[in-house]
Amino acid sequence: MKKGKKLYEGKAKIIYATSDKNLVIQYFKDDATAFNNLKKSTIEGKGVLNNRISEHILSNLTQIGIKNHLVKRLNMREQIIKLVEIIPIEFIVRNVATGSITKRLGIEDGTILKQPLLEYCLKDDDLGDPLIAEEHILAFDWATKSELEKVKKMILRINDFMIGMFRGVGIKLIDFKLEFGRLKENEKNEVILADEISPDTCRLWDSITDKKLDKDRFRKDLGDLIPAYTEVAKRLGILHEQSNLSSVNVTKLRSIKKRK
Amino acid sequence: MKKGKKLYEGKAKIIYATSDKNLVIQYFKDDATAFNNLKKSTIEGKGVLNNRISEHILSNLTQIGIKNHLVKRLNMREQIIKLVEIIPIEFIVRNVATGSITKRLGIEDGTILKQPLLEYCLKDDDLGDPLIAEEHILAFDWATKSELEKVKKMILRINDFMIGMFRGVGIKLIDFKLEFGRLKENEKNEVILADEISPDTCRLWDSITDKKLDKDRFRKDLGDLIPAYTEVAKRLGILHEQSNLSSVNVTKLRSIKKRK
Repeated sequence: MKKGKKLYEGKAKIIYATSDKNLVIQYFKDDATAFNNLKKSTIEGKGVLNNRISEHILSNLTQIGIKNHLVKRLNMREQIIKLVEIIPIEFIVRNVATGSITKRLGIEDGTILKQPLLEYCLKDDDLGDPLIAEEHILAFDWATKSELEKVKKMILRINDFMIGMFRGVGIKLIDFKLEFGRLKENEKNEVILADEISPDTCRLWDSITDKKLDKDRFRKDLGDLIPAYTEVAKRLGILHEQSNLSSVNVTKLRSIKKRK
Repeated sequence: MKKGKKLYEGKAKIIYATSDKNLVIQYFKDDATAFNNLKKSTIEGKGVLNNRISEHILSNLTQIGIKNHLVKRLNMREQIIKLVEIIPIEFIVRNVATGSITKRLGIEDGTILKQPLLEYCLKDDDLGDPLIAEEHILAFDWATKSELEKVKKMILRINDFMIGMFRGVGIKLIDFKLEFGRLKENEKNEVILADEISPDTCRLWDSITDKKLDKDRFRKDLGDLIPAYTEVAKRLGILHEQSNLSSVNVTKLRSIKKRK
């Protein structure tokens, strides 16, 4: 499949056209950003690991019937994905309260929530991705009621599956962010899971030590981000499951280069 | 009814105990605050007008079957109200987008909403009354699902009634804030409408000129707050409906004294 022109460049990924109008190539960059772009850096090898971890999770979700944009991984940094119109909402699922919500609502850090808490943020960097509610989504036509109902059902299933998958390898799924999009093929506008699922978009704590194995290592200057992401990939069985993985030299990825 | 000890002092009102454990006296102060207490002033006569306007609206709501805390007005500044446990949520109803929402979500000022937009804010001055969603209310037990459903139904009726009442006197109801509480009498915990409804808690624009007749005159330093509140009271027929109103000398109320 031939890589066409760049359609879009985000903070962590680039989207390229292909010869098929319904498919695009998603390229995983090494760039890391936090706090609405106030903190930026490049972490060599992050994109390679996220490409693999996201492929692993999305293919597993496909197997349990959660439709998503992944077609197949192309190489170390690229995947072919289905073209969707992204719903401009970040869906945040919290199993344990940590991060922004603790300050925003005065909730004690580490509070285990009695049920998964779904938060909605408007995807708008200029406005700082403000928290919104279902009422805003409907009032301003960011999604329809039936799209939201479908998305909420998918989210609960995704959360159940991911809690199980991570628990099986000694990791607690604290919270994560999902995005959904409307499928453009056949103009059906069917809503499917999009974007990536990786340690960039999840908070993952070691079940025993509570060591952070996610992007909080970057946000909080904890260092050793690549070893943490590599640990997640290894526990999920990714770094040993396919012979073509010899192309990923994990040791080489351990160096972290920061750009100010 | 004998006024007992002070139970609570808020930004605009004081609550006193009475000899009946289920009833309290609500005293309307002249204090005005905005922007989470950053702006403060005293506006002579504001409390008198809000006491009358709120009494007028709440008694009309009683007549259409919306249960609320008002028992009766005692005098120029005081009402007897039923004691409730306030639900710690500000329920904001918007018919037209203006104020905080325009900056927060990038909505054009003055946008007429296709249906009333209900927003929830956590009542917590230290946190700046942050916006929340239904999911937070349920996750942190700030109200039950059945309380919320009941409140939402009451809010839609209150909005319909108030739009009509103000439209009838040439005023547009742009948005307003409501609070609800759990009735303590008989320990039934029934949820009823509480707090005040007045130009302090509503945005009211003249239907023809769009002149602001509400607390935005204070927030935006537009001056002439008392004449605007008096205009609302007069149009609602309050300042002529009872003979004992001669005790309110409207001319005297026009002087605005600011405390820095």
